[in-house]
Amino acid sequence: VVDELTVEEQTRVRRFSERQVVDRAALDEILRVSLMAHVAVVRDGVPVVLPFACAPDGDALLLHGSTAAGVLRAGREGAPIAVAVTLLDGLVVARSAFDNSMNYRSLMVLGVPEALEGEDKARALNRLTDHLLPGRVDEVPPSTRRELAATTVLRLRLDRCSVKVRTGPPTSSADPEDTGDPEDDGGEGSVWAGVLPLAVTAGDPVPSPDVPAGIPVPASVRAAAVRLRPPTE
Amino acid sequence: VVDELTVEEQTRVRRFSERQVVDRAALDEILRVSLMAHVAVVRDGVPVVLPFACAPDGDALLLHGSTAAGVLRAGREGAPIAVAVTLLDGLVVARSAFDNSMNYRSLMVLGVPEALEGEDKARALNRLTDHLLPGRVDEVPPSTRRELAATTVLRLRLDRCSVKVRTGPPTSSADPEDTGDPEDDGGEGSVWAGVLPLAVTAGDPVPSPDVPAGIPVPASVRAAAVRLRPPTE
Repeated sequence: VVDELTVEEQTRVRRFSERQVVDRAALDEILRVSLMAHVAVVRDGVPVVLPFACAPDGDALLLHGSTAAGVLRAGREGAPIAVAVTLLDGLVVARSAFDNSMNYRSLMVLGVPEALEGEDKARALNRLTDHLLPGRVDEVPPSTRRELAATTVLRLRLDRCSVKVRTGPPTSSADPEDTGDPEDDGGEGSVWAGVLPLAVTAGDPVPSPDVPAGIPVPASVRAAAVRLRPPTE
Repeated sequence: VVDELTVEEQTRVRRFSERQVVDRAALDEILRVSLMAHVAVVRDGVPVVLPFACAPDGDALLLHGSTAAGVLRAGREGAPIAVAVTLLDGLVVARSAFDNSMNYRSLMVLGVPEALEGEDKARALNRLTDHLLPGRVDEVPPSTRRELAATTVLRLRLDRCSVKVRTGPPTSSADPEDTGDPEDDGGEGSVWAGVLPLAVTAGDPVPSPDVPAGIPVPASVRAAAVRLRPPTE
């Protein structure tokens, strides 16, 4: 695990390069709160992109999805995949449509994933479960041999990744006098600008119809909900 | 605009194919509430995937992002892109880690995007702005010629797309007698199962530091917040 991310040709941010972040802690924070990744592969020369559940695992990212088969094939053939993890933090509302933006924290990782087997797979599945539902592993029976055999978990090292972050209020690309002093603004100072914060949040847990009355919501589900805090700037 | 989506080889859902949806209304509803898409391209033989702002536009999807340049090049060269739009609706908490899942509505579109110019671009930008911030176009001055020239908007037809949806409580892959009557369940009936609903929600709007006191939050920002409703099952 490195503290500073290296920037190479394929992970160099091309537009708004000042938003590229090389701080390892920023990457870790994105993965700590992300539940889902979008994974792109090349299939028959054509790009394909699909969502996967994800979890951090030391210097790697774990991926698990019902659609793992196609991506796994790419991995087996030594073909690279690209993974995007994006947290949408807000709509940035400027005084011109051109300057509207989004606040976000995003990660892209490139590499060839490893399909885990045996004990590595069992451990990784527990880690995925505990990332999505902290403590759930101790609330349910361990996975059976048959269940493990029917599951695919991919591990992608974080060696080649780029992190891009935008935060804060809107900026203006117009002449300074157009957006400065509200007393001398050509009317723009009277136009609201700011940020509408966004976040993935959890609602009230909904028990399955077959859960008998009186069984409380388990600690794991409460922990998952608490982690998904309401949006703030 | 067709009412039923056709399924061809590249848009056929391969895993959990019963979750494939061919209802055009399901697609429209996903795009109506989605703010962001993940776009994959092949660059030098390697997949790349990046987030873009998105908006529906009749029988097409509009894409706008700071990183449009690379994707645009792929489009200009006639190379296809793949676009995923995913709404994560809940964590599905089963009585075994194996049966855990996610509720989601997801869309994948394949095709070669068109880079819009002139009046088409101006109209598309207004549509993007009004999708993200309903009514904002009437609250700010129109984009200048220079701003339009510095902007890239891509339009991708929805001809080739697949929609996949999972809803509802967890299912069990175990033997029926393991999950039925809680009086005769081998202990599993005492384990909570259900769904933790998730949704992207908006917080309180945060004005820019240069907004004079007393300027109210505009209708567009309030409309954007209201559309992002709290999660329910």
